[in-house]
Amino acid sequence: MSLILCPGFKFSGISAGIKKNQLKDLGLIYSEKPATIAGLFTQNIVQAAPVIIDKQKLKGGIAHAIIANSGNANCCTGDQGLSDTHSMCKSVAKALQIDENHVFAASTGVIGQYLNVQAIESSMSELIDNLSEKNLNLLAESIMTTDTVPKTAGNIFSIGEKSFHICATAKGAGMIRPDMATLLNFVCTDVQADPQTLHQCFKKSIDKSMNIITVDGDTSTNDTALILANGISGLSLDDSEVKNAFQNALDEILLDLAKALIRDAEGANKLVEIAVKGADSLSDAQKIADTVAHSNLVKTAIFGEDANWGRILAACGRAGVSFDPLNLSIHFNEVTIFEKGCYCGEQAEKKVDSILKDSEYTINIDLKKGNESYSMYTCDFSYDYVRINADYRT
Amino acid sequence: MSLILCPGFKFSGISAGIKKNQLKDLGLIYSEKPATIAGLFTQNIVQAAPVIIDKQKLKGGIAHAIIANSGNANCCTGDQGLSDTHSMCKSVAKALQIDENHVFAASTGVIGQYLNVQAIESSMSELIDNLSEKNLNLLAESIMTTDTVPKTAGNIFSIGEKSFHICATAKGAGMIRPDMATLLNFVCTDVQADPQTLHQCFKKSIDKSMNIITVDGDTSTNDTALILANGISGLSLDDSEVKNAFQNALDEILLDLAKALIRDAEGANKLVEIAVKGADSLSDAQKIADTVAHSNLVKTAIFGEDANWGRILAACGRAGVSFDPLNLSIHFNEVTIFEKGCYCGEQAEKKVDSILKDSEYTINIDLKKGNESYSMYTCDFSYDYVRINADYRT
Repeated sequence: MSLILCPGFKFSGISAGIKKNQLKDLGLIYSEKPATIAGLFTQNIVQAAPVIIDKQKLKGGIAHAIIANSGNANCCTGDQGLSDTHSMCKSVAKALQIDENHVFAASTGVIGQYLNVQAIESSMSELIDNLSEKNLNLLAESIMTTDTVPKTAGNIFSIGEKSFHICATAKGAGMIRPDMATLLNFVCTDVQADPQTLHQCFKKSIDKSMNIITVDGDTSTNDTALILANGISGLSLDDSEVKNAFQNALDEILLDLAKALIRDAEGANKLVEIAVKGADSLSDAQKIADTVAHSNLVKTAIFGEDANWGRILAACGRAGVSFDPLNLSIHFNEVTIFEKGCYCGEQAEKKVDSILKDSEYTINIDLKKGNESYSMYTCDFSYDYVRINADYRT
Repeated sequence: MSLILCPGFKFSGISAGIKKNQLKDLGLIYSEKPATIAGLFTQNIVQAAPVIIDKQKLKGGIAHAIIANSGNANCCTGDQGLSDTHSMCKSVAKALQIDENHVFAASTGVIGQYLNVQAIESSMSELIDNLSEKNLNLLAESIMTTDTVPKTAGNIFSIGEKSFHICATAKGAGMIRPDMATLLNFVCTDVQADPQTLHQCFKKSIDKSMNIITVDGDTSTNDTALILANGISGLSLDDSEVKNAFQNALDEILLDLAKALIRDAEGANKLVEIAVKGADSLSDAQKIADTVAHSNLVKTAIFGEDANWGRILAACGRAGVSFDPLNLSIHFNEVTIFEKGCYCGEQAEKKVDSILKDSEYTINIDLKKGNESYSMYTCDFSYDYVRINADYRT
């Protein structure tokens, strides 16, 4: 894989001693010039200190740096938690000689324990010395929790003779449902954008990526997605051609990352698209995709490589959508397993059995009512999901 | 345990060869005189043949027998499925010389396969020879799917010098959420009741028992709960004292059974009550109880005996209910682990750790806003749940 860069941005990721075993747990993004920023956050009523503080700072629309730690969520930590997040930002501001209001923070990990700010402060010079435009991967590593691999994506996109860059990282392997931003997700780009337009584009892309994936249906108190645009490319989103190209590029990068999150989901072996079509309304298609994607019985059948279409149908039937089961059909990739109210027989199942052995496939559900469609990505439910989450704090 | 009886009712349970390994798979309830009947069924849009047919017959309000099989759901089996259910009922009607319209049917098992009606018909004389008022337990056994033990409950209840009986059985270990009747559940009583009053009482009790339990949040296409009242006790629900006593008795019997279902839920080791109080409205309390009871992260933490209150709080926070996290408190039984926005420390956690080792306990959540409360019962999420459901059809 070629190195992912974005002109004007530097990244760092080190071990500050917050996690055990000297794993990387402290990361930094530094924009050489102040960038415009947009952000999306968890919809959970319970919100961590850095979420509360970032939301305030976002009103200014300008960011110079983001500091992030893993190993501790700094959530349900009261006034001390808020003060700790401020201290993190202050340290960065002081070391880089920038405005503290332009330093954003993110935390991920266990809830309810005080953050070791001392460790973060002591590591500040190492964190800054480590900054390089080539270090996106180290940043990606520093924000991992139960993730097993660092996740990054990025590319150069051309418009005529000019080009712009997007690079991004995300982390999150559990506590994921399509309920706003989801997890930690940082995006850097060299287009020029006012905060409102940037927000608009970011929201659209997040809705088509981070908001269509689910691992376990739970949500975090710390979900934070931030995008920084430094304008260095000279290409501005005020130009509709640039805006379109940027939107498509951002869609692509974030969908890549979202799929990578599901591939690395807790205990997951399968990336399965739940593609619903033929619905009367988008909302109907969404309800069915959501119910099937979250069904534990469907997810354990995916794990067991069992063509248990009855569970898929039963999940559709409790989605709160009106449809005629005699019209609905179910297909694994292009193979029909259920239609006209009946099972398609052993020959079809034999073909499906081979698809089920693949690590990625699509379950197509056709309501044959209207023209609306919606897709979501889910994973299987395995022993390892239980193992990882039964032992999480120990 | 003493034998559970209800005067005027006989039960049977045999092996007809629908399940493998000669396990019991065919059961019968026979009321010596026609009884009034009330029933509740799955809310799933996809409904099995016996559900469709029972709903029709229920309009008559009279039942003489119920035939039930396990090992095959007779769902998504088209016209053949409907015809097969009719054949089951016809066989019983012929053998017992009763009206086919007074014979109800229930099926449970795998979806989408045709029922072996031949096997059922060949076993009819054995099924009827086996009828005895002492055989409730055999019936209970014959309707088991992934259940590991047969579930029955019953008692004699006195009113002055008179008394009435209730006896009941239920099956269901997975595909359970609080969404109407849930699973198979048959109740016999010797009170006298018109079908409307019987339905009213049954619905109330089901709402406080079968409708407050969850295993995995999925629902079945075959859920059927039927109650038969033969009037033999001479006590009528027209008498308000009798009606009150009957309602309380039915509540008690069905809650016993509902808890038994959770104790025997797929892979479950724990029966945990999620008790929410201090809510502004019943709906708010229900939403929070439902979200916590269904959270896979809470359920895996229960399995791991981990006092992970952060996950409980995070589940509350995504329930769609407005509350102040600084006011909410979380308690395991009587031990407070989280209040005033903060963790209560290691001493509290030590006490909670010992509670978590118990097989049954309560997670109390106090919103400290209003006066409404609601409780649900859930279980842990274990390796065995995954094992059972990955391999279900194989």
